Amino acid sequence: MLKLVLLRHGESVWNKENRFTGWTDVALSEKGIEEAKEAGRALKKEGFVPEVAYTSYLSRAIKTLWLALEEMNMTYLPVYKTWRLNEKHYGELQGLNKAETAKKFGDEQVLIWRRSFDVPPQPIAENDDRNAKFDPRYKNLLNKEIPRTESLKDTVERIVPYWQVEMAPMLKDKKHVLVAAHGNSLRGIVMYLKNMSQEDIISFNIPTGIPYVFEFDDDLHLQRDYFLGDPEVIKQLMEAVANQGKAK
Amino acid sequence: MLKLVLLRHGESVWNKENRFTGWTDVALSEKGIEEAKEAGRALKKEGFVPEVAYTSYLSRAIKTLWLALEEMNMTYLPVYKTWRLNEKHYGELQGLNKAETAKKFGDEQVLIWRRSFDVPPQPIAENDDRNAKFDPRYKNLLNKEIPRTESLKDTVERIVPYWQVEMAPMLKDKKHVLVAAHGNSLRGIVMYLKNMSQEDIISFNIPTGIPYVFEFDDDLHLQRDYFLGDPEVIKQLMEAVANQGKAK
Repeated sequence: MLKLVLLRHGESVWNKENRFTGWTDVALSEKGIEEAKEAGRALKKEGFVPEVAYTSYLSRAIKTLWLALEEMNMTYLPVYKTWRLNEKHYGELQGLNKAETAKKFGDEQVLIWRRSFDVPPQPIAENDDRNAKFDPRYKNLLNKEIPRTESLKDTVERIVPYWQVEMAPMLKDKKHVLVAAHGNSLRGIVMYLKNMSQEDIISFNIPTGIPYVFEFDDDLHLQRDYFLGDPEVIKQLMEAVANQGKAK
Repeated sequence: MLKLVLLRHGESVWNKENRFTGWTDVALSEKGIEEAKEAGRALKKEGFVPEVAYTSYLSRAIKTLWLALEEMNMTYLPVYKTWRLNEKHYGELQGLNKAETAKKFGDEQVLIWRRSFDVPPQPIAENDDRNAKFDPRYKNLLNKEIPRTESLKDTVERIVPYWQVEMAPMLKDKKHVLVAAHGNSLRGIVMYLKNMSQEDIISFNIPTGIPYVFEFDDDLHLQRDYFLGDPEVIKQLMEAVANQGKAK
């Protein structure tokens, strides 16, 4: 049996302030650090021993992985980092407080920007300091690969090829793979693996810090998927994520 | 100009207790954590921007790298881990208090074991729990590659091929490389790069937590090497390492 575990990073400093983050490289909050450690302890307790791990270029996902691996006594694990696992780019919304944005544009518009499948927020300007082309970590990307905004569709379309070309063969070969990333890049993988519709993926909320386990047969046919933990707690966590974009 | 930085991990819990560590996977002490962060701050101040990093399979080196990268805001860096950068294997001495060993066998014998080029300590038994063949992180090694003790010569002979085959081409290609590892695996690289004699490398002590910079021309000819920091402080640190094995 092949096993994939997806882990969404915990609370960042901006999550806490309810601000749109996207590609902004914001640190985990104290709570986020605890969530990552707890996920590591849960995976250790479950006896999950990955052979390889993946994460994004953003430090909140990388740090989540590192903290979990420390708890698992597996810091030696090979780790591959890719911009394709980055969070959805939120364009001009990056840095804005979600509640303020909701007050200004209305709950509905914010929900469209956050949750519509193919409507991206306004892009940041080409010469905006926040343009990732000015960040050395992205210097090996083609200019056309660097987003200035993204819809969920755009995010899905950059992660699925990475799954197909890199992660799926690795899973088939190594059998146990851990991925620490972001709400929307993980949605891309989930949508692909579960063959979900646009409507279904939009309303599907991955809780933070809860290992999401996928089991496959040797031909990479999905057998089952489940969250590690108390179902009632997980339901509450999923609802909390869904409510984040509403005005408070 | 090509630039290589070697970073020896700081104090571990066992360094603090003056015990032989070798391949035992012992955590950094609080002081060791601070040393790693300070090294990261020094590299950041120096404007050193590596393209890739290497470390061992042992968490005290990995953690040193992680902490330094966090200070440098470079957690996204590609990191390659290899057992070939592990500390020298100390055989039966692993776990023993250095001062006690010195009292029992005398300063001279301990100095031979710690510092002679080609005399290894007694090997641990094949079925000893400490044998690395029982540790899943080494499962991809050939059995004959897994040491049960090592002389410094053995350690040098496993790191030099990795330098030649993996790190040197990477340095030539990527230009700036960071390595976080251990006293003796780093000695192997230093001996090779500086073409040092057996006698010279034995008495050459790399201070912990101080970035050791090597500059090369485009053909990988060494131009100069230096430690980052106050020369007087570095001299004291090197002497402190040299005195570690003596009975107290």
